[in-house]
Amino acid sequence: MNFGERYDLYNRCAEEAISSAFSASFAEPALIGSMLYSLRAGGKRIRPVLFFAMLDALRYPYGEERELAAAIECIHTYSLIHDDLPAMDNDDFRRGKPSNHIVYGEGKAILAGDGLMSLAFDLLLRACGKGEKHRQAALRLSRAAGVDGMVAGQWADLSENEADERTLLLLDARKTGEMLAAPAVMGAILGGGDLEIAERFGAAFGALFQFTDDLLDVLGERERVGKTLGKDEKEGKLTCVKVYGVEGARRQAEKRAEACHAALSGMGGDCAFLHALVDFVKDRDR
Amino acid sequence: MNFGERYDLYNRCAEEAISSAFSASFAEPALIGSMLYSLRAGGKRIRPVLFFAMLDALRYPYGEERELAAAIECIHTYSLIHDDLPAMDNDDFRRGKPSNHIVYGEGKAILAGDGLMSLAFDLLLRACGKGEKHRQAALRLSRAAGVDGMVAGQWADLSENEADERTLLLLDARKTGEMLAAPAVMGAILGGGDLEIAERFGAAFGALFQFTDDLLDVLGERERVGKTLGKDEKEGKLTCVKVYGVEGARRQAEKRAEACHAALSGMGGDCAFLHALVDFVKDRDR
Repeated sequence: MNFGERYDLYNRCAEEAISSAFSASFAEPALIGSMLYSLRAGGKRIRPVLFFAMLDALRYPYGEERELAAAIECIHTYSLIHDDLPAMDNDDFRRGKPSNHIVYGEGKAILAGDGLMSLAFDLLLRACGKGEKHRQAALRLSRAAGVDGMVAGQWADLSENEADERTLLLLDARKTGEMLAAPAVMGAILGGGDLEIAERFGAAFGALFQFTDDLLDVLGERERVGKTLGKDEKEGKLTCVKVYGVEGARRQAEKRAEACHAALSGMGGDCAFLHALVDFVKDRDR
Repeated sequence: MNFGERYDLYNRCAEEAISSAFSASFAEPALIGSMLYSLRAGGKRIRPVLFFAMLDALRYPYGEERELAAAIECIHTYSLIHDDLPAMDNDDFRRGKPSNHIVYGEGKAILAGDGLMSLAFDLLLRACGKGEKHRQAALRLSRAAGVDGMVAGQWADLSENEADERTLLLLDARKTGEMLAAPAVMGAILGGGDLEIAERFGAAFGALFQFTDDLLDVLGERERVGKTLGKDEKEGKLTCVKVYGVEGARRQAEKRAEACHAALSGMGGDCAFLHALVDFVKDRDR
């Protein structure tokens, strides 16, 4: 299997995981519909793909961990819905489609996000029934999503920030880095990988993802990226382009990609796909 | 100990549970401060009090279950913050103080709510480490808070509703009833009580609480209740007063109180405080 075929395979696992999380019948079908509108808006599923890939690299039966995988994507999607709200980043488009609050209104968009977060944690509580390793994996995701991770990063993003490297790295690590590191570490927890190396890989991968995201905001094509571009500079956001300039940001992204490869080399297992995933993110145009 | 002293005792346990959930150091002290602003705005803590009271009635060492108790109050408080937002119920006052978004702004209020929900579920994941009964209790709370419970109720509350009894009871059960039933059932799960009876008690207690809440919106004094009154009618909300009239609503509340007492009588243990709590809620003026 080449890289694209394997990505599609893990992606299908992610879709199945999400579908099975929604296979029950629910009290308010319209609420579930609004959650699925954002969940199925054509995301790359890179977080659950990373989770499945790490499990597979460590020769763990990856396809069975549906609850953890679905929880990862539900938490990510809730954060996008809340982030797009007028009171936050005020984005009318996401993944090339009208944002959740444009379609359903602000109040219901807040609830769609709340619903996705509570569904995600319900899935994590169910996963805990499988044993202590699953609980540890769930706790790692919870830490990434919560008040020491993504929520803290979003809070800092709404606050005034110094435009220096130290602030940038801390902000990025919390706002987006943690939610990209967690799937890799969760895979290592279940698969018996070296957690310190997995954390190192995850941190570098998270920074790589955010740096290329910042670069796309400056250099990307709207049709391919699927959201409003050029916003960061207009709104004075703290990005790696602001701190390093375009060429400097490219070099920093390269450096993070190298750190990813170095960590993977010490990981054991079969990390060929993960190496390719790093280069895919480094060179992405959307 | 009389009723008031025992309420204070359980209330102190709730405060200790909340304090210990916040005893670590956090990434963004200002975010934590905004969460604590709403957590410490003078709520009655009736949900964790009910949880501790049920544990105590069943002779379970109640003071030790801090994680579950704190999670209950964190989820309740997140729901108030989001509910008060302009896009939802648009309330400037809560518990006699400016609402979270009035003090911190809308974006940060959304994040304070998100932070409280994620902290709550983190506490539940930690509680799961104590064993299967704890996980079952956590799942019961998760069900109450989530897309088949409170979030579904909030969604329905933002939608058009028939002004009939069936719709009212379903809306109330989801919007507020589930989060009042859950602490009682969680206590019964840990304490080995009859779960069917606990569910019946919880459902009646939740309805009693909401009915008296609706009555206070019509009959209460603003200073005592601590929030804007008369809003339900002005906004055409579906309340028990709308469906039954004031006198009818009073009779319905009585009926729910009797159902609570009947359930408690079959519960075993020492339910004297719980009986008194039912009458306290029935006769409350705030």
